[in-house]
Amino acid sequence: MMRMDFLTLFPEMFPGVLESSILKQAAEKKAVSFNVLNIRDFSENKHGKVDDYPYGGGAGMVLTPQPVFDAAAFAANEARGKPRVILLCPQGKPFSQAESERLASEEHLIFICGHYEGYDERIRENLVTDEYSIGDFVLTGGELGAMVMADSITRLLPDVLGNAESAKKDSFSNGLLEHPHYTRPADFKGWKVPEVLLSGHHENIAKWRKQQSLKRTMERRPDLLEGRQWTEEEKKVLETLKNDN
Amino acid sequence: MMRMDFLTLFPEMFPGVLESSILKQAAEKKAVSFNVLNIRDFSENKHGKVDDYPYGGGAGMVLTPQPVFDAAAFAANEARGKPRVILLCPQGKPFSQAESERLASEEHLIFICGHYEGYDERIRENLVTDEYSIGDFVLTGGELGAMVMADSITRLLPDVLGNAESAKKDSFSNGLLEHPHYTRPADFKGWKVPEVLLSGHHENIAKWRKQQSLKRTMERRPDLLEGRQWTEEEKKVLETLKNDN
Repeated sequence: MMRMDFLTLFPEMFPGVLESSILKQAAEKKAVSFNVLNIRDFSENKHGKVDDYPYGGGAGMVLTPQPVFDAAAFAANEARGKPRVILLCPQGKPFSQAESERLASEEHLIFICGHYEGYDERIRENLVTDEYSIGDFVLTGGELGAMVMADSITRLLPDVLGNAESAKKDSFSNGLLEHPHYTRPADFKGWKVPEVLLSGHHENIAKWRKQQSLKRTMERRPDLLEGRQWTEEEKKVLETLKNDN
Repeated sequence: MMRMDFLTLFPEMFPGVLESSILKQAAEKKAVSFNVLNIRDFSENKHGKVDDYPYGGGAGMVLTPQPVFDAAAFAANEARGKPRVILLCPQGKPFSQAESERLASEEHLIFICGHYEGYDERIRENLVTDEYSIGDFVLTGGELGAMVMADSITRLLPDVLGNAESAKKDSFSNGLLEHPHYTRPADFKGWKVPEVLLSGHHENIAKWRKQQSLKRTMERRPDLLEGRQWTEEEKKVLETLKNDN
């Protein structure tokens, strides 16, 4: 069973996400256990202080190393195996599906969620093993990034997803964007479902879906197609698309 | 005041995040109001059903259009101005700080959070105005992406951030990664704070920080420096860095 610890100053942000949907099911199936630790609980300061003014001056407060090191040591003691200690920060490696797959084979992940304060550099230098950023946008803290990573990694763990969901995962892994989906009613406010999907002709349906998937990828994310090894089937579909234009 | 509505099948994921930290403060300051709507509450089906089998066959269920259209109409009626209706999906435009700044000037954002099911294509074609993806990784639903966007946008709204935080925002906006921060103790487990930061020499401190910021950006994110207009000060720092190597 994988273990994930979240070190945070805002523990109340986590339960709603960790106790819903697939993450909840994954914990119930014992594929993963989630543990949220309040960094403040590990402060040796009698007022529970966890930050202090920056050396050299400047705006904002800085998270002090002691409570973070002690919280991480506590989390590490609870589990077997060497944990990866992950810092969410704008300077980190961009998180991606490939990184998610790599981390899904670990036994223990400890996420350090800095907040709008900075954190003492010695945390990064001497405790953290991996730094990740989920994107080029500024967030008020690392909590949402940690939850995003936890969600992405958890759904890759063995036995977490049902068959239907696994199929989708595979569909994404083929490097193309998904084709459109339609369900009842066949006519909604005058907007109709494409006829081919109502035809019952499995071969035509498969061809249409592949075509839509390729078309959407070409239009929206041509970068995903760079260096692609085209299958014979795909080449045929590409020809059809060219003739349609 | 900006309004944000979240249309979801998992409303319990939201309060922990929306009622913490900066987002909570922003709502208290009436810079933004957050509203979470359960798509299921808008289903005309007597069992509250919101999904159905896909036309053309295949694994998984598909979110049916009626409850989503009705929930979005309800949200739109509650507010003035034309809302942007945002779908979180892997096919969407990559979310970035520039997109966040653009959206921060809107009056009303409605986020549609699809879950592991697909959603009927007519939602995308006839209701949604913008599609976003927060990154190239697979998540179990759009909820975390919507919360990430909400967090990023909210902190840009007028009067939301205090002075200290605003300063940090500006520091990020200069296109470089942040310099390291240090706070007490000056010696932690034998790891010492760089002497320059203890010197009280403001000019040297500013120079050191700029140097560290440039060095880190060159090492970790050289892409951020492409096409950069270097200031005279930065050119000098670059020279120092070259001499150090």
